[in-house]
Amino acid sequence: MNEIEIINYIRSAFKYSKLDDDVAYLPDKTALKVDMLVGSTDAPPGITFFQIGKKAIASAISDFGVKGVRPTYGLLSYAFSKNLSDKNIKDIINGTKYAAKKYGFKLVGGDVNESSDLIVDCFLLGTYKNQVTRGGAKEGDIIYATGEFGLTKAGLDHILLHQHIDARIKRLALKQVYNVEPPYKFAVEAIESGYINSSMDSSDGLAYTLNEMAFQSNKSFIIDKLPLSETIYKMLVYSKRNVYNDVMFGGEEYQMVLTVGQNNATFIEKLAKKNLTVIHKIGHVVNGEPSVFFREGQKLNIIPKVGWINLGFHTV
Amino acid sequence: MNEIEIINYIRSAFKYSKLDDDVAYLPDKTALKVDMLVGSTDAPPGITFFQIGKKAIASAISDFGVKGVRPTYGLLSYAFSKNLSDKNIKDIINGTKYAAKKYGFKLVGGDVNESSDLIVDCFLLGTYKNQVTRGGAKEGDIIYATGEFGLTKAGLDHILLHQHIDARIKRLALKQVYNVEPPYKFAVEAIESGYINSSMDSSDGLAYTLNEMAFQSNKSFIIDKLPLSETIYKMLVYSKRNVYNDVMFGGEEYQMVLTVGQNNATFIEKLAKKNLTVIHKIGHVVNGEPSVFFREGQKLNIIPKVGWINLGFHTV
Repeated sequence: MNEIEIINYIRSAFKYSKLDDDVAYLPDKTALKVDMLVGSTDAPPGITFFQIGKKAIASAISDFGVKGVRPTYGLLSYAFSKNLSDKNIKDIINGTKYAAKKYGFKLVGGDVNESSDLIVDCFLLGTYKNQVTRGGAKEGDIIYATGEFGLTKAGLDHILLHQHIDARIKRLALKQVYNVEPPYKFAVEAIESGYINSSMDSSDGLAYTLNEMAFQSNKSFIIDKLPLSETIYKMLVYSKRNVYNDVMFGGEEYQMVLTVGQNNATFIEKLAKKNLTVIHKIGHVVNGEPSVFFREGQKLNIIPKVGWINLGFHTV
Repeated sequence: MNEIEIINYIRSAFKYSKLDDDVAYLPDKTALKVDMLVGSTDAPPGITFFQIGKKAIASAISDFGVKGVRPTYGLLSYAFSKNLSDKNIKDIINGTKYAAKKYGFKLVGGDVNESSDLIVDCFLLGTYKNQVTRGGAKEGDIIYATGEFGLTKAGLDHILLHQHIDARIKRLALKQVYNVEPPYKFAVEAIESGYINSSMDSSDGLAYTLNEMAFQSNKSFIIDKLPLSETIYKMLVYSKRNVYNDVMFGGEEYQMVLTVGQNNATFIEKLAKKNLTVIHKIGHVVNGEPSVFFREGQKLNIIPKVGWINLGFHTV
């Protein structure tokens, strides 16, 4: 079984339970989330142990943000392998501590184990005002994505497959790969505004994310702009990257994809500006078969639901 | 750093947070707990994959029970290694499902990963009426332990060190090693009665547990009876076991150790009977230096704070 098949098996085994997609909204305005970092698959070569600790928290926070949940309490389960030095272990712990402070939750418990693989499993409890799903996009909604796409795939291809990239883009790309920093503050404020009709974090890749939202909303998504700045676009082209591929079929971006009614688009853009969050208007929602298209002039090309397949950083 | 040193480092790094010992009691009568099962250290040879799934939940439930917390929601993070078959994975999932139903909580989230080690990390949210600590024992309290001690160590020594034990005791011992079943119902009802002054689960070994309670209560614990039945005592002696050692310095028992005022001792014994939970009166609490003694006639022998050191089942 692959990961998706296993998840489906769990869903059917626990069918008496309610399993939400990104976070578990409980009836009393609290929500739960767990996200596990595994050393052999989630820690790319070159990342520091401090950054690993930060990433373990940030990837859980990413889902909390796009679902409008503010974390209150956390529990952390660590498993360390024997080959880690005391300094490595302390750096990981300090990375988690740094991120816990940054995102403002208290650690109230945890577990420490020994294992052949490095594990940092982050469990969060938080509070929310409004729920938002992947499936609430409405006809006429504007589609936005935060952040600069394309850099992460260029960076990972450089790290894992040794593909050459120019020095300037390399610096930006590695920064993005190693320092996971979701647009948490903007995301949570956007959801709390009540204006967002659907949202999801982009960690499985932009094409996958857009398709998930389109299918669960039963709408067509028309994309006509890629979420990256002109400067970065040019830098990627200069490094002979296939920019469209890098943007659509990357993954690990931990950005926010959202849809919002036209009347509230200005509010969202202002909110992003206030939070210094880069945001790109990339398309709009229409009635039609659930699918995602990229429009070039009059031509509509299907964007397939191809996701970020995590093959294991250390085994590639 | 060993496990204790790492835990102390985490406690000092997160010193702005409140870290309870066994479960995290939150102010609003809810509580949190995480417990990680690691294949290479927590799954003894011969255990089935279904039993592994059950154990992952039961060891978290053990702490909930002795702290009076009833689970409401759970999240499960799994990491599976490549050498597991589809059937192995399904058996683990079904073991967790069986235990989730048994202990009455809903699964509301989780995470699935690939790792070189098997991981089942269980996060629980629950509700409580009364808090109880390791450190509330009072002078004159009666000390009780549930279950039959000695069997687990005999079983593990047989499995891991190939020590010979008699067939009859082997059957009971392996059942106890492979089927982790904490006295959850009795435990939670006992705490909810409000009569328990201190309690802890015995998974780190009886000697360690009694010492923790004595030190945190700042009292002396006088033990004069071992918590096991006459029949099992005889069976262990017949297998040439050092019964005192097996009882005191085992571990992985997931039983409840508690202290209760003399006036409420009868209530606790009746409650155990009602729940078909085996319980042994093993000693009493006196004022004095924090320490634990075993009394034989007039002689008091110190029971040292020696715990269950998990060396990794598969590496012994």
